[in-house]
Amino acid sequence: MTNTQLSLVQIDNYGPWTVTPEPRREMDLQTLQSRLFADLAQFVGSRNGYVFFTRFDNMVAVTNGLDDADHELLQDSIGNRYPVTISLGVGVDPSPIEALESGTAGLQTAGSAQDGDRREVLSGSTLSDAERAGEDVQIAHFDVNDATGKYTDRLNEFDSFIQIEQGYATLMRYLREEDDALSFFVGGDNIISVCPAMTEGDYRDAIRHVSEEAGVELKVGVGTGATAHDAGFAAKHALEVCREDGTDVEFDRPHAELAD
Amino acid sequence: MTNTQLSLVQIDNYGPWTVTPEPRREMDLQTLQSRLFADLAQFVGSRNGYVFFTRFDNMVAVTNGLDDADHELLQDSIGNRYPVTISLGVGVDPSPIEALESGTAGLQTAGSAQDGDRREVLSGSTLSDAERAGEDVQIAHFDVNDATGKYTDRLNEFDSFIQIEQGYATLMRYLREEDDALSFFVGGDNIISVCPAMTEGDYRDAIRHVSEEAGVELKVGVGTGATAHDAGFAAKHALEVCREDGTDVEFDRPHAELAD
Amino acid sequence: MTNTQLSLVQIDNYGPWTVTPEPRREMDLQTLQSRLFADLAQFVGSRNGYVFFTRFDNMVAVTNGLDDADHELLQDSIGNRYPVTISLGVGVDPSPIEALESGTAGLQTAGSAQDGDRREVLSGSTLSDAERAGEDVQIAHFDVNDATGKYTDRLNEFDSFIQIEQGYATLMRYLREEDDALSFFVGGDNIISVCPAMTEGDYRDAIRHVSEEAGVELKVGVGTGATAHDAGFAAKHALEVCREDGTDVEFDRPHAELAD
Amino acid sequence: MTNTQLSLVQIDNYGPWTVTPEPRREMDLQTLQSRLFADLAQFVGSRNGYVFFTRFDNMVAVTNGLDDADHELLQDSIGNRYPVTISLGVGVDPSPIEALESGTAGLQTAGSAQDGDRREVLSGSTLSDAERAGEDVQIAHFDVNDATGKYTDRLNEFDSFIQIEQGYATLMRYLREEDDALSFFVGGDNIISVCPAMTEGDYRDAIRHVSEEAGVELKVGVGTGATAHDAGFAAKHALEVCREDGTDVEFDRPHAELAD
Repeated sequence: MTNTQLSLVQIDNYGPWTVTPEPRREMDLQTLQSRLFADLAQFVGSRNGYVFFTRFDNMVAVTNGLDDADHELLQDSIGNRYPVTISLGVGVDPSPIEALESGTAGLQTAGSAQDGDRREVLSGSTLSDAERAGEDVQIAHFDVNDATGKYTDRLNEFDSFIQIEQGYATLMRYLREEDDALSFFVGGDNIISVCPAMTEGDYRDAIRHVSEEAGVELKVGVGTGATAHDAGFAAKHALEVCREDGTDVEFDRPHAELAD
Repeated sequence: MTNTQLSLVQIDNYGPWTVTPEPRREMDLQTLQSRLFADLAQFVGSRNGYVFFTRFDNMVAVTNGLDDADHELLQDSIGNRYPVTISLGVGVDPSPIEALESGTAGLQTAGSAQDGDRREVLSGSTLSDAERAGEDVQIAHFDVNDATGKYTDRLNEFDSFIQIEQGYATLMRYLREEDDALSFFVGGDNIISVCPAMTEGDYRDAIRHVSEEAGVELKVGVGTGATAHDAGFAAKHALEVCREDGTDVEFDRPHAELAD
Repeated sequence: MTNTQLSLVQIDNYGPWTVTPEPRREMDLQTLQSRLFADLAQFVGSRNGYVFFTRFDNMVAVTNGLDDADHELLQDSIGNRYPVTISLGVGVDPSPIEALESGTAGLQTAGSAQDGDRREVLSGSTLSDAERAGEDVQIAHFDVNDATGKYTDRLNEFDSFIQIEQGYATLMRYLREEDDALSFFVGGDNIISVCPAMTEGDYRDAIRHVSEEAGVELKVGVGTGATAHDAGFAAKHALEVCREDGTDVEFDRPHAELAD
Repeated sequence: MTNTQLSLVQIDNYGPWTVTPEPRREMDLQTLQSRLFADLAQFVGSRNGYVFFTRFDNMVAVTNGLDDADHELLQDSIGNRYPVTISLGVGVDPSPIEALESGTAGLQTAGSAQDGDRREVLSGSTLSDAERAGEDVQIAHFDVNDATGKYTDRLNEFDSFIQIEQGYATLMRYLREEDDALSFFVGGDNIISVCPAMTEGDYRDAIRHVSEEAGVELKVGVGTGATAHDAGFAAKHALEVCREDGTDVEFDRPHAELAD
């Protein structure tokens, strides 16, 4: 059984800041957002977590392995180096969507995202070492079959992007509704999903649904581990097996082992 | 009439690089991608252009005002500082999608995006000063009505994101098909579209379509200028007028003026 | 007694790379160097170490608290994101200069800094948890008395800089020769020294020497801890006491305690 | 004759900010400083200027080719993305030190560097296109003869650094006093000097002085151009000629040409 620790990262009062005293240059905002995300990716990633940019003013991190002190340090360090501050809401649950629900609720209870007085909230609590296990995180790494040959080398870039984007929009909704999994576009033709303990059949259903509804053909490698990096790295290797063997769904370990 | 100069930015042979000799850590890839985008945003943005991250391995820039030497310098500077190189394909057309079609074709003709020998291509040519005009770029800046109150402060972050994302997926497809405009999610609840000379009616139709199909309520500020920044900054101010007056569509200048 | 763990960070074969195939743009090299340093500062700093830019192609880090796996991860992550790679040589000793001697020797034994085949060496070994103690690191944080009033607001910037620089050049040489301490300019009018267990008299002698030889008046806060951050943060607070009380040398704790 | 345009970049009220409300983490400050410098290096460098980090809270830029609007844009963009703001003082003079004196005076007149109310000052004015010429900037690029063989591969890193540093401290003072030139350490064994129109004899005298006083053997390539990059790139190529031919001083063009 999975036990995902998710941390919602929310820039405090960001919308109003972007237009105060008048609208700021768009490319400066884009730079700020993407660099903030990159810094989170390095901090969380070098501690074996994952972070996804989502809406940039709100980002979702898988933080199994990071403790309360890590969260405080991250918050402090961002506050020292950026013109904005961040609030962090942590939640833990076998179901990723429930974990995020809990992390989000912690911030919502403290005030609105656009409340100028609500700054650097840190809510929720992290897993102790004793509570952690080697199957806490399941990561699925999807990509599109032959995206370069079918899209990138053939269509104009926007029409290629539309194909990938519609595939993503379909998958994200399906996995959210059917499996309580959270799916994030991570660039290129790649989508990474934070999943509960799902079966091969569950993944086959998702791939079939995206094919039928959006006409986009996916394959997926699935990994399980104590952290997002452990699970995600195993998923990447499983995806390489798909590429080599021409298969659609590969797990990093037998189901029997997962069921233990 | 608009005359948009678009530059496709494509990381050379990126997919294979990410898994050679074995898959690289996902958070390092995310860091690399988002910092590369940030550097492009600063280079292009400080010359009054816009760049959108799209799929990160392929990015789309509005480069009216940047000449061939600027493109060469950008390519050179990225090559000096990153483990990857970029190719650039430039296209110009009254229709944004045609401009991108042309820019993309320049790179496709030179070889596949995953051809290891095709590096640092620079194709197409930029507008001369004599060819440029004050109405070359039309930018529409959309946002979601009361996204904080309806979504961020009420739903969990992923369900908020699904709403925004489905609104975006619907708008991007509609504007592409109906108006040859290119729409990009830029964070928060913001979408920026690079448009041909569209009318107020065209924008109202788009907003109505997104409301009906995805249930997401948008408003839009529209600006026109010689560069993406000029047009986009005017669009931001027009969007502020929407916010203050409770209107759905605002232009930065009367239509009569645009028709000149 | 201190027990400093120092890691030499050396960019592999950097000199030749900067002029291959022809000299690269200077500002791109400066950007690369300073961002690489910033990334090291975040990685090492968020694990409570310190890193100093020194010559940029060779940097010195105080890494008490970082283990072998941290060093490997750092090396791997830099290799994934930069066009250059780094080698790391670790040394541990009560004397900082001996620790660095040992760390440097590890790399020198493996080959020349400009040997194109010597890449990503990791030599030496880190302290185990059992070997670590609360007095392992002593940090002295110096600044110049009234640098703003005497220099910045009065002289042109280069002449201000000459004053600070000559003060630094004098201090670095003196502390190296007299005390085996390593001193680094860290911006503004600040110098941070990594020291063995030195006494108040040792610091007074150093300040007097710099005053007599370079005409620059310093004060210093000294801190001791298990990590560079613990020691350095205590040193900063001690320096604040100097500022408030008008004193020249302040320790974070009584000598008797240090002698335990 | 040279005509150097120098811009002093000063972080507003930085010292007090670093200790408010209490001292900030040193590695966060180091990160902030080096990233701010990197951003300046990209902005100024991609417009063919040079910037030197000097004391980090005060930096010196050679900005021939950048106009007032460029300076305003830079100031605005930094203010949008950092927790600190910058003031800029521009000066122009055949003598680099006089240009910097003038640029510094502009800021000093406006208030103290630690005056909390003095923010985002922009003083002085830039050269018009009509005033600019192809010999406005002279750059000398020094390096140390066989630094890798004599120091890096033989001494511990701090003792190597001391050699380089003492050579630099000697050169910077000599060229300032004898020639009104400004010299900056730029990493490795490299020093870049912004010079008035100096002769081969002047450079030989400087090299001899550093050899005699600090025991460090230098060579130098000298370039002249309309911008720092033009001059500096020519200097790098001239330095390559020194390396190949074993000479000490090389100019990019005959003196007769410079005297025209």
